[in-house]
Amino acid sequence: MPPLNGKANTGTAVSLAIAVAAEPPSLEDNTADLDRLKRALRPLLPAAGRPLRIPFPLVADIAARFRDCGFRGCAVVNMLPERFELVDFLPEKPVVFPAMALDLGTTHLEASLIDLLTGQRLAVANRPNSQIRFGADILNRIHFATSRRKSGTDREVEQDGLVRLQEAVLEDIGRLAEALAREAHIQPAAIRGISIAGNTTMTHLLLGLDPYHICREPYIPLVNSVDPLAAGELGLNIAPAAPVWILPSRGSYFGGDLVSGILASGLDQQEQTCMLIDVGTNAEVVLGNRDWLIACAGAAGPALEGGVARMGMRAAPGAIESVRIDRQRWCLEYQTIGREPARGLCGSGLIDLVAELYLARIIDLQGKIRLDCKAENAAQEAFLRSRLGQRNGEPVFVVVPAEQAAGNEPVTLSQVDLDALIRSKAAMYAILTTLLAQVGLEFSSLERIYVAGAFGRHIDPARAVTLGMLPDLDLSVYRPIGNSSLQGAELLLQDEQVRMRSYDILNKITYIELNVNQEFMNRFSGCRFIPHTDPSLFPSVPVFSERS
Amino acid sequence: MPPLNGKANTGTAVSLAIAVAAEPPSLEDNTADLDRLKRALRPLLPAAGRPLRIPFPLVADIAARFRDCGFRGCAVVNMLPERFELVDFLPEKPVVFPAMALDLGTTHLEASLIDLLTGQRLAVANRPNSQIRFGADILNRIHFATSRRKSGTDREVEQDGLVRLQEAVLEDIGRLAEALAREAHIQPAAIRGISIAGNTTMTHLLLGLDPYHICREPYIPLVNSVDPLAAGELGLNIAPAAPVWILPSRGSYFGGDLVSGILASGLDQQEQTCMLIDVGTNAEVVLGNRDWLIACAGAAGPALEGGVARMGMRAAPGAIESVRIDRQRWCLEYQTIGREPARGLCGSGLIDLVAELYLARIIDLQGKIRLDCKAENAAQEAFLRSRLGQRNGEPVFVVVPAEQAAGNEPVTLSQVDLDALIRSKAAMYAILTTLLAQVGLEFSSLERIYVAGAFGRHIDPARAVTLGMLPDLDLSVYRPIGNSSLQGAELLLQDEQVRMRSYDILNKITYIELNVNQEFMNRFSGCRFIPHTDPSLFPSVPVFSERS
Repeated sequence: MPPLNGKANTGTAVSLAIAVAAEPPSLEDNTADLDRLKRALRPLLPAAGRPLRIPFPLVADIAARFRDCGFRGCAVVNMLPERFELVDFLPEKPVVFPAMALDLGTTHLEASLIDLLTGQRLAVANRPNSQIRFGADILNRIHFATSRRKSGTDREVEQDGLVRLQEAVLEDIGRLAEALAREAHIQPAAIRGISIAGNTTMTHLLLGLDPYHICREPYIPLVNSVDPLAAGELGLNIAPAAPVWILPSRGSYFGGDLVSGILASGLDQQEQTCMLIDVGTNAEVVLGNRDWLIACAGAAGPALEGGVARMGMRAAPGAIESVRIDRQRWCLEYQTIGREPARGLCGSGLIDLVAELYLARIIDLQGKIRLDCKAENAAQEAFLRSRLGQRNGEPVFVVVPAEQAAGNEPVTLSQVDLDALIRSKAAMYAILTTLLAQVGLEFSSLERIYVAGAFGRHIDPARAVTLGMLPDLDLSVYRPIGNSSLQGAELLLQDEQVRMRSYDILNKITYIELNVNQEFMNRFSGCRFIPHTDPSLFPSVPVFSERS
Repeated sequence: MPPLNGKANTGTAVSLAIAVAAEPPSLEDNTADLDRLKRALRPLLPAAGRPLRIPFPLVADIAARFRDCGFRGCAVVNMLPERFELVDFLPEKPVVFPAMALDLGTTHLEASLIDLLTGQRLAVANRPNSQIRFGADILNRIHFATSRRKSGTDREVEQDGLVRLQEAVLEDIGRLAEALAREAHIQPAAIRGISIAGNTTMTHLLLGLDPYHICREPYIPLVNSVDPLAAGELGLNIAPAAPVWILPSRGSYFGGDLVSGILASGLDQQEQTCMLIDVGTNAEVVLGNRDWLIACAGAAGPALEGGVARMGMRAAPGAIESVRIDRQRWCLEYQTIGREPARGLCGSGLIDLVAELYLARIIDLQGKIRLDCKAENAAQEAFLRSRLGQRNGEPVFVVVPAEQAAGNEPVTLSQVDLDALIRSKAAMYAILTTLLAQVGLEFSSLERIYVAGAFGRHIDPARAVTLGMLPDLDLSVYRPIGNSSLQGAELLLQDEQVRMRSYDILNKITYIELNVNQEFMNRFSGCRFIPHTDPSLFPSVPVFSERS
C-alpha cells in the first residue's frame, strides 16, 4: 500500500489526546472538578470558538478518573464541527493513538489503522463483505432488506432483512478492528475514531436505514449527510465514545466512497481540470477542478472486479495480476499475487491478458476468440493447440493448465467472460467521452487522470489503452492512486480541512444520470471494438485487418 | 402564584415547534429525505450560524415520519448553544407545546408547566422531596450517598446510597410531571423540555454524581456547569429527547437555585445596586448590579422553613400564615392556608407571631418568654393565663388551643423554637450587613431588596423589620418575588438570553465564605436582640425597657 498522500496533522484529528495538568483544588480555588478540567483543557484545544462538552453518561467516570489521576493526565477529546467532546481521561498520554479508516465496499471491506499522533499507518486488513450471502449486488441487498415489507404485519418482521444485513457488516467491521488491533498490539477499545467510505446503499445498510427508495424512481436515499455519531450507538467494538464519521453521499448513485476518492486525489483543489476514474463494482468518474465538479457512474466494473468473469477474483494470493505472451517463442508468462499457484484472474491480470490476446491476434477486433486462427510457425501452432479449445460448446482460452494451477483447476477465459469485459471497457470509454462532452472539453485538456480502485492499484494504463478502455494519451497523464476511497477516509481522520471539504464537494458537484442519457448509449455502441470503431482515436494501438 | 415576569419568547425556547413544508422528491430534485427536511427547516430556525443535527438513534424514525406525513408537518427542534437538534416530526403543529420548570428543593419540589408557544403557565404542582426518608438535610444525604464507600468492596455497593437517592428524586419528578400533564390534559411524553434549579448537592444527587467532596474542605463539587442532556439519559418520563437544562452552580454552597433567583429578579441586569434575599433551608443573599455581583450564604433559614420549630411546617393547608394579637381586647386572631383547622406555623406565621409577641411584651428583647409578665387589666390577665405555660419544664406559648386545632393537637411555640428563630433572624441581619460591608455600602444605597423563597412569598417585610431580621427601610424598597428559583427556571425555558445569562453570572459573581469570616461572627452576636443591640438602627420599632 502506498504511503499516505497527506501529512500527519494531529492538530485537528477526529480525536485528540491532550496532556493536561490542572492545579489541585484549594479554598482559594474551589471550582468543581470537571469545570477545573475544562478550564485547564480549553487553551490547549486546537480551534477556538466552539464549546467543550462532556456527554452526560461519561460525566461521573471522567470526574473520578481526573481526581484519581491527581488532576493531571491525558484528556481524550472528540473534535466535532461545532463542539469538542471530552470523552475520556487517561493517566498519561498513550504511545499510539489509533483510529480506523474503512472502505466499505459492496463485495469487499478494506481497512487501515492510523496513529493520529504521527499519521503513520499502523496496520491494514481486509475481508469480504459478509452481506454477500444475502445478495450478491446492491439491488439484491436492497430487495433482501425490504422484501418483508408487504407480507409482514409488524415492524419487527418488516425490518428483519435490514437487521440481518446490518448485523453482518457490523460483525465484519468488528473482525477488521480486531485484526488491526492485533497487528498493532492494542485492544480494539483503544481505537478512538473511525471513518467509513461506502456507497449510498452500503452506508444505509450499515446504519440500519431503510434503503427502499434508493433504487426506485426518483431514487431517493433516506440520508446523504449523516451527522457524526458514537461507535457505541452503532454497536461497534471500538471505544464506545469514538466518533464515527460517515463520508457523505451526493445521491443514490454517488456515494461517500467517491467523495472520499475526490478527497484523496485532491481533484476539488486543483487549478487545472483533472479526472478521477474509480472502478469498483461501478465505474465512477469525476471531472473538474477547484471551481466545479461533474460526475457520473455506470456499470463498467463487474468484469474487472471478479464479479462477472467466471475465473475472475479479487486481488488476493493466487490471483494472476500480470500476463505476457511472448510472440517470438510463443509462450505465456504470468505472475500471481504472493507467488502462489494460480487460482484466477484479478482485474489487472484480465486486462493484461485480453490486451495480449489482441496483440497476438488470438481474439479479433470484436473480442471474439479466433478458434480458426492460423499459425505461422510450429511454436505458435503448438501454443494455439494447447491453449484454445471449447468447453460446454463455448470457446475458451486456457491461461493456466490444470496441472500448474491451484487445486488442479485450470484457469481459463471464456467467450462469455470476454464479452463481459468488452462491454465493461466500452462502457468505461463511453462514460469518459460523455462526461467530457457535457462540459465541451477534450481528453487533451486534462492535466491529469487519477486512476483509482482495484482497477488502479494493479492495472497498467498502457494495457487499458490497448483495449480502448482509457484514452490514448501520453502515459504520464495517468496517475494510479490505489484505493482512493480508503485513502480519503484516512485523510479525513487526521485533518478537519478534509472533513470540511467532504461537505463542500456535495454542494459543488453536478451529477449526470447516464441511464437516461441517449448520447451515452450511442457512444457505447461505438466502443465495442478493440480499440474502437474509429481507430484514429488510438494511434498507438496496432490495428489488424480481419483476415490477414 | 404571580404571573411570569418575562414575556413569552417562543423564538428561542429550549424546544421549538416549527411548521415546515418541503417540496416532494423528483428526478430533478432527488436529494435525500433528511437532507431535504434540513434544507426546508434551516431558514425557519431563529438563530443562524449553528448546525442542525439529528441524533443518530432518531434518524430512521424521523425520516419515516417525514415521508409518511407527505414531506410536511411540524419539526420539533432542541435549541442548544452550539447546535440545533431535530428530535421529532409531527403531522401538524400542536395546540400546546409544554415544557416543565422545577425548583428542586432539599425538602420540597415545586414545578410548573409552561406552554412554549405562548409563555402561559398551564399547571403547577409540588410535593415533598422523598429523599427526606434517607436524611433530613444536605449533610445527612451526602453521608447516606457515600457512607458505604469504605466498607464496600465493589463499586455497586459503594454507589448504593447514591443510586437510592437518585431513584427517589427521579420518582418525585416523574410524579410531578404526571400531575402537571394531568392538569394540562396532555401526556407526560408531550413535555418537550425541562429546566431544573436546585442547590449543588441536590443537583449532584439528581444526576447520580458523587457529592462526597462537597462538604469536605476545600468543598469541591464534581461539576458546576452541567452540559444540557436528554431526558431519556436521565430516565425521566417526559419526551426522551427533551433537553434537560440544569441551572449551573457557582460552588458547593452557591447552587443553581440561587442563580435562577438572580435571573428571575434581574439583579444581574440592573443599573442600580440591588439585593436579593432568598431564604430556603439556607439564607442566600446576593448584592450587585449589571457590573458586579457578590454573594454569601448562611444557615439562617431552618426556623423559617419548618425544619427547626417543632410546630413549624411548610406553607400548606392548615399552616398558620398570619397572626395578630389585639392588645385592646387581648385576643389572638390567626389565618390558616385554605382556612383549614390549624396544624402548625409556616414561616410567615412564625414571624408574625414573634413580632406580635414582642409588641405585646410577652417576650423580651432577647426573645425569652416572660412567664412573670404583669397584666394591666382583666382581659390581659385572662389572655396570659390561657396562653402561657410550661411543657416538660420549658416555657411555651399556646397559639391555638387543642380544642380548636386539627387533631386536637394544640399549636404551641416553645422557648427552644423561639431561640432558633432568634438565631436565624440574627444570622440573616448579620449576613446582610457583612455583605454590604464587603463592598463599603450602606442599606440606604440599595435601590431595591428582592425578597424570595418560602420566606418572601408569605412574609410581611414590616414584621421582619420589627424583629430586626431585615433593615428598617421604607417598605417600598422591599419587593417580594415569591419562588424566584422556579421563576428563573421558567424564564430559562423560554429565552436563550436567559440561558446565556445563567453562565455569565457564574463568571461575574464573587462568593464570600461566612464560615471563616470573623466579622460575621461578631455581627451575629450583636443581632441576637429584638430588634438589635443598637436600637438606633431600627427607629420604627418600639423599644421597651426591661422592667416597665
